[in-house]
Amino acid sequence: MSLKYAVIGSGALGGFYGGKLAHASKDVHFLFHSDYQFVVDNGLKVDSVTGNFHLPNVQAYRSTADMPKADVVLVCLKTTNNYLLKTLLPPILHSGTIIVLIQNGLGVEEDVAADFPQQPIAGGLAFICSNKIGDGHIAHLDYGKLNIGVFQGEIDATLEQLKADFSEAGVPTEVSPNLMTARWQKLVWNIPYNGMTVVLNTTTDRLMREASTRQLSYELMLEVIAGARACGVEVKESFTDKMMELTDSMTPYAPSMKLDFDYKRPMEIEYIYSRPVKTALAAGYDMKKVAMLETQLRFIQSGLSRQ
Amino acid sequence: MSLKYAVIGSGALGGFYGGKLAHASKDVHFLFHSDYQFVVDNGLKVDSVTGNFHLPNVQAYRSTADMPKADVVLVCLKTTNNYLLKTLLPPILHSGTIIVLIQNGLGVEEDVAADFPQQPIAGGLAFICSNKIGDGHIAHLDYGKLNIGVFQGEIDATLEQLKADFSEAGVPTEVSPNLMTARWQKLVWNIPYNGMTVVLNTTTDRLMREASTRQLSYELMLEVIAGARACGVEVKESFTDKMMELTDSMTPYAPSMKLDFDYKRPMEIEYIYSRPVKTALAAGYDMKKVAMLETQLRFIQSGLSRQ
Repeated sequence: MSLKYAVIGSGALGGFYGGKLAHASKDVHFLFHSDYQFVVDNGLKVDSVTGNFHLPNVQAYRSTADMPKADVVLVCLKTTNNYLLKTLLPPILHSGTIIVLIQNGLGVEEDVAADFPQQPIAGGLAFICSNKIGDGHIAHLDYGKLNIGVFQGEIDATLEQLKADFSEAGVPTEVSPNLMTARWQKLVWNIPYNGMTVVLNTTTDRLMREASTRQLSYELMLEVIAGARACGVEVKESFTDKMMELTDSMTPYAPSMKLDFDYKRPMEIEYIYSRPVKTALAAGYDMKKVAMLETQLRFIQSGLSRQ
Repeated sequence: MSLKYAVIGSGALGGFYGGKLAHASKDVHFLFHSDYQFVVDNGLKVDSVTGNFHLPNVQAYRSTADMPKADVVLVCLKTTNNYLLKTLLPPILHSGTIIVLIQNGLGVEEDVAADFPQQPIAGGLAFICSNKIGDGHIAHLDYGKLNIGVFQGEIDATLEQLKADFSEAGVPTEVSPNLMTARWQKLVWNIPYNGMTVVLNTTTDRLMREASTRQLSYELMLEVIAGARACGVEVKESFTDKMMELTDSMTPYAPSMKLDFDYKRPMEIEYIYSRPVKTALAAGYDMKKVAMLETQLRFIQSGLSRQ
């Protein structure tokens, strides 16, 4: 079986993962936005710690109306643009097309499923450090693993093929037996560090250096784990040790939300904070400190802060 | 009985309250710091909504070693300078001198009592909006009520005299039967608005305008009330309505901690946040959101934030 891929959102994530597949001669069709013409003229360039490559001839589109129907759609948009999916996706879907949401947070699959109730849907978590550094130009700085899990549909066989394709392309990929566990685990890191670096205008290393914020980071992790547990998702408390060690071992780091804040782009507050808070609360657990961070971020997003 | 007053910290509070007493011909001795020479040369000027006045001849000192022993010491320092009291106070104390700590927060009396265990001590809360706007120059913008309560010693009679003196000077003064209730009540306002205006770099009106921060302000108030209750201090939950209304009725306002932050002065985190958090926790209640605000403020104070 040979899969036809569509990549929606060909930036730091989509440019890298789609680029790796295309570089391995898979059939990949990319939706570009602002840098469409540049990519048509110059191709796509990926500077990667695992080896640079250049794709002179990319199957690039500026509208999904012009794209072929795909077997797998890799959605790599920022979640703040997910409202676009309702109109972007229909032209490229056949009845068996799997929509793979490679995005952070909680609730993205539920929202897409509400608009596409019959469609197979999977979620993906990217453990990667990459940036778009120019038109058609991606820098891949570290890591890269993909973790994919089924949300709805009988899609195990296709996901195995996708996993094989990514392996062939040099991207380590796991198919997770429980997508929600994977999502909550990633939130254990994302919730403390994304919000705190924005609210305190700082980097991860500084939060870890000061005893009080180091402790607060840890407490936020524990709240996320308690929230997950309320939702029936078991994450061991010892997982916090791994996350603390991971953060200690990083170079001074500005998470994606901090970059969004610095560049005055909308922040992914809804899926990284609001939905987890609401979901845990509905299940009976009040993530109080996470909710406070959410409130502070919404205030900053509103423009009422002078930060 | 005629009382001899000493004012330690002759700034926005001490300059106003001491100035009002002196203006009413009470015997007031002021400790000045940086503006000592200016006041000796030019006196003390108070621009007040209740009437401007100028005191050309102030009993001004630059060291307590030169001051007479007082019957009442009005301590109007920022609490971040309270470590100075151990050396500042002894020269002006006789065995019956009442130390009145006109300061915000919780625990100031306990700490001074540890150094002066035999001394009569009272606490005072100032409901006032005043600023020092220049050397020997105080602007009194609004309010002004003083609320005094006994911490230790048999001092009811002297406090009645003090109350009479202040009334004569045009300062409405109450002697509160329960100092700790008064302190916790004031924290119900101070805790949300001081910290939140700093962390979110904003003013009270903006916090009240945005629904999420308005709600968070209210939740912080409820936490303070629950913390007080754990400590055996009853503050009615309806008190929050009064505080919300008060804040709504204010002009856009930067609380004292926000001004300290803006002018890069140390913030009164210890007595307004850390001690209430510790005290409530020791009594069995974890003020989680207040503790988180404390942590964020300590991080900002540490200079590790770029704010």
